[in-house]
Amino acid sequence: MTHNVAILGASGYTGAELVRIIATHPGLRIAALAADRKAGQAMAEVFPHLRHLDLPTLTTVEAIDFSGIDLVFCALPHGLSQAIVRDLPRHVKVVDLGADFRLRDPAEYRKWYGLEHAAPELQPEAVYGLTEFYRDDIRKARLVAGTGCNAATVQFALRPLIEGGLIDLDEILCDLKNGVSGAGRALKETMLFTERTSDVAGYSLGSKHRHLAEFDQEFSKIAGRRVEIMFAPHLVPVSRGVLASCYVRGDAQAIHAALAARYDDEPFVVTLPFGQTPGLAHVAGSNFCHIGVVGDRKRGRAMVVATLDNLNKGSSGQAVQNANLMLGLDETAGLTLAPVFP
Amino acid sequence: MTHNVAILGASGYTGAELVRIIATHPGLRIAALAADRKAGQAMAEVFPHLRHLDLPTLTTVEAIDFSGIDLVFCALPHGLSQAIVRDLPRHVKVVDLGADFRLRDPAEYRKWYGLEHAAPELQPEAVYGLTEFYRDDIRKARLVAGTGCNAATVQFALRPLIEGGLIDLDEILCDLKNGVSGAGRALKETMLFTERTSDVAGYSLGSKHRHLAEFDQEFSKIAGRRVEIMFAPHLVPVSRGVLASCYVRGDAQAIHAALAARYDDEPFVVTLPFGQTPGLAHVAGSNFCHIGVVGDRKRGRAMVVATLDNLNKGSSGQAVQNANLMLGLDETAGLTLAPVFP
Amino acid sequence: MTHNVAILGASGYTGAELVRIIATHPGLRIAALAADRKAGQAMAEVFPHLRHLDLPTLTTVEAIDFSGIDLVFCALPHGLSQAIVRDLPRHVKVVDLGADFRLRDPAEYRKWYGLEHAAPELQPEAVYGLTEFYRDDIRKARLVAGTGCNAATVQFALRPLIEGGLIDLDEILCDLKNGVSGAGRALKETMLFTERTSDVAGYSLGSKHRHLAEFDQEFSKIAGRRVEIMFAPHLVPVSRGVLASCYVRGDAQAIHAALAARYDDEPFVVTLPFGQTPGLAHVAGSNFCHIGVVGDRKRGRAMVVATLDNLNKGSSGQAVQNANLMLGLDETAGLTLAPVFP
Amino acid sequence: MTHNVAILGASGYTGAELVRIIATHPGLRIAALAADRKAGQAMAEVFPHLRHLDLPTLTTVEAIDFSGIDLVFCALPHGLSQAIVRDLPRHVKVVDLGADFRLRDPAEYRKWYGLEHAAPELQPEAVYGLTEFYRDDIRKARLVAGTGCNAATVQFALRPLIEGGLIDLDEILCDLKNGVSGAGRALKETMLFTERTSDVAGYSLGSKHRHLAEFDQEFSKIAGRRVEIMFAPHLVPVSRGVLASCYVRGDAQAIHAALAARYDDEPFVVTLPFGQTPGLAHVAGSNFCHIGVVGDRKRGRAMVVATLDNLNKGSSGQAVQNANLMLGLDETAGLTLAPVFP
Repeated sequence: MTHNVAILGASGYTGAELVRIIATHPGLRIAALAADRKAGQAMAEVFPHLRHLDLPTLTTVEAIDFSGIDLVFCALPHGLSQAIVRDLPRHVKVVDLGADFRLRDPAEYRKWYGLEHAAPELQPEAVYGLTEFYRDDIRKARLVAGTGCNAATVQFALRPLIEGGLIDLDEILCDLKNGVSGAGRALKETMLFTERTSDVAGYSLGSKHRHLAEFDQEFSKIAGRRVEIMFAPHLVPVSRGVLASCYVRGDAQAIHAALAARYDDEPFVVTLPFGQTPGLAHVAGSNFCHIGVVGDRKRGRAMVVATLDNLNKGSSGQAVQNANLMLGLDETAGLTLAPVFP
Repeated sequence: MTHNVAILGASGYTGAELVRIIATHPGLRIAALAADRKAGQAMAEVFPHLRHLDLPTLTTVEAIDFSGIDLVFCALPHGLSQAIVRDLPRHVKVVDLGADFRLRDPAEYRKWYGLEHAAPELQPEAVYGLTEFYRDDIRKARLVAGTGCNAATVQFALRPLIEGGLIDLDEILCDLKNGVSGAGRALKETMLFTERTSDVAGYSLGSKHRHLAEFDQEFSKIAGRRVEIMFAPHLVPVSRGVLASCYVRGDAQAIHAALAARYDDEPFVVTLPFGQTPGLAHVAGSNFCHIGVVGDRKRGRAMVVATLDNLNKGSSGQAVQNANLMLGLDETAGLTLAPVFP
Repeated sequence: MTHNVAILGASGYTGAELVRIIATHPGLRIAALAADRKAGQAMAEVFPHLRHLDLPTLTTVEAIDFSGIDLVFCALPHGLSQAIVRDLPRHVKVVDLGADFRLRDPAEYRKWYGLEHAAPELQPEAVYGLTEFYRDDIRKARLVAGTGCNAATVQFALRPLIEGGLIDLDEILCDLKNGVSGAGRALKETMLFTERTSDVAGYSLGSKHRHLAEFDQEFSKIAGRRVEIMFAPHLVPVSRGVLASCYVRGDAQAIHAALAARYDDEPFVVTLPFGQTPGLAHVAGSNFCHIGVVGDRKRGRAMVVATLDNLNKGSSGQAVQNANLMLGLDETAGLTLAPVFP
Repeated sequence: MTHNVAILGASGYTGAELVRIIATHPGLRIAALAADRKAGQAMAEVFPHLRHLDLPTLTTVEAIDFSGIDLVFCALPHGLSQAIVRDLPRHVKVVDLGADFRLRDPAEYRKWYGLEHAAPELQPEAVYGLTEFYRDDIRKARLVAGTGCNAATVQFALRPLIEGGLIDLDEILCDLKNGVSGAGRALKETMLFTERTSDVAGYSLGSKHRHLAEFDQEFSKIAGRRVEIMFAPHLVPVSRGVLASCYVRGDAQAIHAALAARYDDEPFVVTLPFGQTPGLAHVAGSNFCHIGVVGDRKRGRAMVVATLDNLNKGSSGQAVQNANLMLGLDETAGLTLAPVFP
């Protein structure tokens, strides 16, 4: 049985990645594509790499007839999903790829995003979309809030360690290397090819990055106490990928064992042999996350390195994985595409 | 029904791309992987991006039991396939991705490759592997000789024009822009990251490139007379892709119409609207070829631009497409993966 | 003696390159920097790589006191220089890096740029800024019109051949590979890192590129008859550089000899040994142009490959070279910086 | 007065960078270039970007007549400088860019490099080449041992803080992002363009990197006690540059003030305004180091980010700066070239 889906925000990179994934998905069919500013255009004009597909013309959200839609992917800029999701017919399931429903506490949302939430009544039913850790809730959910791509990467590295009480909760430091597609397709001088191609630079340093809100929420919840990590993202000149170097205090071997055990049965999270760490290029284009652990010469210090593709496992792949669960499909359907290397 | 395949030369980039494609192919199963110098290693060591797959350990060619193998992909350096293919059991079908069986005339082979052919008796049965133009022969073939990646790109642009008598056969000039993976994984100073990342430079200029032999053979055959094109490849700092800018004499509109008509039913070759030309990034990671045509202010001159992924449509994707035909499978099986962008 | 210069349009890439070159120039001093939209900012904010220099704050053009200025570099977008140059005090010499004074025929300007020229009375005194070919005129000029970067590259390859009657004037085809900085620092979706980093694509194909006007003007003038070349530029994922592959009809050895002889005494144009062609990375960051020649298997066909840095020799380096001549300085002053590789 | 220098190891990237810098240096003249495996070749063949220079042909070290040489730059692979330096005439001053004379303790050298030192008698006279901190010793030195590029970057960030007692010596963590040229021009599969262009990955993790020996030596010396930092380098797809993200405990404002004060008079080390951090692209091609400081939401934690060009300030620029001092020249001679951006 094929389920009809609509993608709102189809002219952005996560929208395009959803289309790419669904193109070979056995159980989903794209019934509508919305992109307000590009309404009326063919997807082939907006994304020529999808030219071979027979896709609906881009439209406005308002123009979509949701009566035949089973599930909506919202790939909209932050702040725009709330009212749209609020007004959808109740039979429509929703996977939101943005930040609008990630934070359970409206005060936190207001603090980090500077906005009053437009649909606080939906907040209680929104399930946090980190599939591997919220699988059962997601299966039953009507509304799933996708995680931030950095948030996903770091949580894959650290959740089992916090859950297992294996690391010092006050000494977690995450240095991230981020591909440029994380900034989306919006026009900014700093995102021009010429500005980025030979550059590496930190951004939102000094605890200013909004993904901190997600870390705080999730890690504090697991730990049963307030946990605040240090988090420093850096832009690197690749299109796709997040590589998180997480510095923790704990026994490296025990940390590795816990990760290996936790992810042994997971289809998309792979733990490398002890002492090896992953490269970002080796997950690009896929829904896989690779994790490695090394010890330090200083006793009781370890480094956990996790990497995934921000557009795929960190966003659109995760979204499809969640949609699969919500629609009763095989969780891995459409997602086993191998990474593209070189 | 699943067919067992072996990949010889699995430690090179086209070998890895075969594995990537077959990973989600519904009708093929990888039964053996050979890479003489890396025999004994796991594929995950040689290509970490394939780490999630359950693959046979790399072995030598000699160690393979071919009795249960239906088809062999030879992704070996030039010159090495001949003796190996000659000695395979006759029940095994073969798709050779190298140059060893591309040239029908052993004298041409000797001239361009400087070697005496080791299996000239197989030459008559080898079918040239440009699927869209040798489909019926390939279906019946035991041995298919994959095309060069440049040769494929240019032929997609020009064959229908030569067949249709639409262009001046003495005035064909092709300027190519080539991704670095075309040089393979061999160690050469000029292929280091530092040497290539900001460089663009011609190579094998002055009619020295071996793909000229393929052009001469194929274009002369179609035209029924000797045809010699001018051909100048240039390395550009991308991993994957060939973009061929083909300058011809003929009517641009007629040329576009001929290409559009010829490829209208083809699943993998897409003709763009007149006046638009393709970008190399929009086919990367896929088996698609995009073609566009523009006219020049000089009457009777046109430019045909074709692009494809050298590792995929130009090599391993083409090989799987041919294998599908040889094994009686759906020609598009495993090959509909959309390009990865950005 | 030190000459005071002003740079108008200092927030663009050619403006920054002027500052970079002048930073170690023994005879020029930057007295004023203008950038209307960024007036009031420090150059270090706009271009952090120039942070170590003691530079004037950015201002508007109107705010500059030109009484103490000897020479102005106009690095403004096309169309903006005309009125500004017209209104400058007559004692100020001007090097315009844009297109406003390149075309001698106002009708050609109107045709290609779609604008009525605002200072046609200045056109007669404007000298075309291809230093190596207009040196004597430039020495005496008050107003020099810098060439387009593509125009410079191709003219270095072809002018001596047209002057020498060595090639067929009706069969000149130039396929260019262009670094992205040629598009400037303006915000365009197609110039984002994510869009360009793995892409190669033609642009302004079909004889639409405005540099054609310069080619037509210059080549027709030399030849004494109308000459129209074919010209197809392609964007490649490097920041700096133009590599022009020029396909001509003539004797390759004679062509090489003519180029080698013509540039033997030139400080910035280097002819490679016959049969070798240059790489774009080997001139980046410098005022040098490298040229090579190869023959084709087809008799009487040759390929001339020229490369230079579009921001330097193709624009700001050329501008300083011209300013040196106009101010009576050593022509090479400040310009002998070696290319930066790797 | 011009001093004659020889460069040993001229076919590597630091050798080429020395030539590039010296090309516009007013007081140095290249009298000999050695590269054993490429002896007999012209520098233009080995490094085409230096084609415009009139340089000596490459020779073997043995073939050099050192009688007229004032100073030798040794840009040789680790382990090769010792015997060569030992056997040089005593009138020749030496700047060694490799690791052979960096470590004062022969036991440390043996431990980290696995070799017995071949010239331990020279060790006492070798001065550590971090110019800004050993300036007076370098002026008087005959033999200066250049620092590692990572070691330089991190020391610029941290030395003033350790000297000032501003940070916790047991809690220093440095996450580095390294350009690929740091690996040199040697042939390694992992350094191919195709392997690196879209990748980011840690290397020598788990306290295996040899630069740790330098950190331990220098930081322990300053602190008067054993100091061991955590240090994790990562390869990023740029040619040049090191960006060090140093996580420390201390007061961010005090840290910034100390750095700003320390480097206020330094010509090549620039402290950014508080709260700003540098980008690697903004020092590429130059002898400058940019440093920035931000605080964290956790009290008493700060991040110091330093960046420099590994081939220039991290190696060849530093070497020339030291040579200037040793030869009584202006310390900044030849080194004020501005970074090349974009």
